[in-house]
Amino acid sequence: MEKLTLIKVGGKIVEETDSLTKLLDDFSKIPGHKVLVHGGGRSATAIAQKLGVESKMHNGRRITDVEMLKVVTMVYGGLVNKQIVAGLQALNVNALGLTGADINYMRSEKRPVKEVDYGFVGDVKEVDAGLLADLIKRGIVPVLAPLTHDKKGNLLNTNADAIAGEAAKALAQHFEVTLIFCFEKKGVLSNEKDDDSVIPLITPDLFDRYVSDGTVQGGMIPKLENAFEALRVGVKEAFITRAGELGKENGTRLIL
Amino acid sequence: MEKLTLIKVGGKIVEETDSLTKLLDDFSKIPGHKVLVHGGGRSATAIAQKLGVESKMHNGRRITDVEMLKVVTMVYGGLVNKQIVAGLQALNVNALGLTGADINYMRSEKRPVKEVDYGFVGDVKEVDAGLLADLIKRGIVPVLAPLTHDKKGNLLNTNADAIAGEAAKALAQHFEVTLIFCFEKKGVLSNEKDDDSVIPLITPDLFDRYVSDGTVQGGMIPKLENAFEALRVGVKEAFITRAGELGKENGTRLIL
Repeated sequence: MEKLTLIKVGGKIVEETDSLTKLLDDFSKIPGHKVLVHGGGRSATAIAQKLGVESKMHNGRRITDVEMLKVVTMVYGGLVNKQIVAGLQALNVNALGLTGADINYMRSEKRPVKEVDYGFVGDVKEVDAGLLADLIKRGIVPVLAPLTHDKKGNLLNTNADAIAGEAAKALAQHFEVTLIFCFEKKGVLSNEKDDDSVIPLITPDLFDRYVSDGTVQGGMIPKLENAFEALRVGVKEAFITRAGELGKENGTRLIL
Repeated sequence: MEKLTLIKVGGKIVEETDSLTKLLDDFSKIPGHKVLVHGGGRSATAIAQKLGVESKMHNGRRITDVEMLKVVTMVYGGLVNKQIVAGLQALNVNALGLTGADINYMRSEKRPVKEVDYGFVGDVKEVDAGLLADLIKRGIVPVLAPLTHDKKGNLLNTNADAIAGEAAKALAQHFEVTLIFCFEKKGVLSNEKDDDSVIPLITPDLFDRYVSDGTVQGGMIPKLENAFEALRVGVKEAFITRAGELGKENGTRLIL
């Protein structure tokens, strides 16, 4: 099978001109087939504030009411996604921006209301990567926004890490996939105050231990869970690293 | 050649829930290959106002400064485009929302500054409909937002009638294209106060006469010029009609 690199970058990297320029330059140099998944939360919060739409969070997750859904549709599907696509085209990367509704590649269901009503937030249910894989083989580079749809006419705000993990799993049927989650640090750190204390390798057993002793916490937990799940379903390699380290394999490698 | 229907709808139709629902329902029933091109100006103006971005117009054309470019990128490329795509997917139409930057299908150049500086407005220079045509033949229905790019990293605000005309011309190399411009009236009216005074047929000679005597004026002039130009370059049929009349061929037909 041909190789494919799927990179997920958080909002901060794509929302500031300097870091976005560097990211797109680094990304354009990655050889072979590739996919970029992006966030955009900080821009959504900023635009929502200007529009007078209140940003409500619960445990770091956004609550998406009908007005906030419009904001994230604008910001993730429009502003952030299309700026990335245009930027990549300038670097001769034939990018195609997609939400899950486009070519119906990722269907989700509105998260059931339990203790918290997250509103228009989608949990991924079905990925159809067939046409996506064909496009990639023709040289197209998908740029995936953190939005899915329920196939009933509703767009749903969807965690970008989950999009990356689900897309990687589905594309693993067509490619030898390397999944890379980029965040602010060089990798998962054993000492959060020491940027150079990157843990080079994490197995599921080590992961459990790091969660127990607090080395791994917060948003890193679902990120690693997504990555391990992807590995179990056929993704070849998974890394956690900093966007600036792309291509250097300096981060934390996850293995089963 | 296989047939393709390319429909351009103005902002008003796609910006109100009732008319959008009706449009998507009518559009989903059109047999065979199809493409939808949409505007979105009213929403852009409304969102811009809420964001404190001033809407400047010259002869009915928007002046797009850097802040307004962000607004139209959000509104045309995100809010309006993705709501249409999700709505069509619910009707089992396999829609794919695109700006000109996506798969680099439409490149433009920033309009030169003469008496007026329109800002980040693009005049279409190059359409690559090859991959687009392949996707259409696979059952994909492109939904084209009124945004292009300059292949240097900049998105450019682009008139939706021009997008429709240019896409129709390029697709005419691959399909037998019917181009339909929808607006608020049943067709071009001989008496603007009588909604039933639809002119059934307009030739270039009649067009010149109608422009001279004021029957055809304002935004209808470039719309008809676009349509005649498309016919000259190989588009099979062109109509001006109301969105509600889609499929009925009740509007104004243009012939060379």
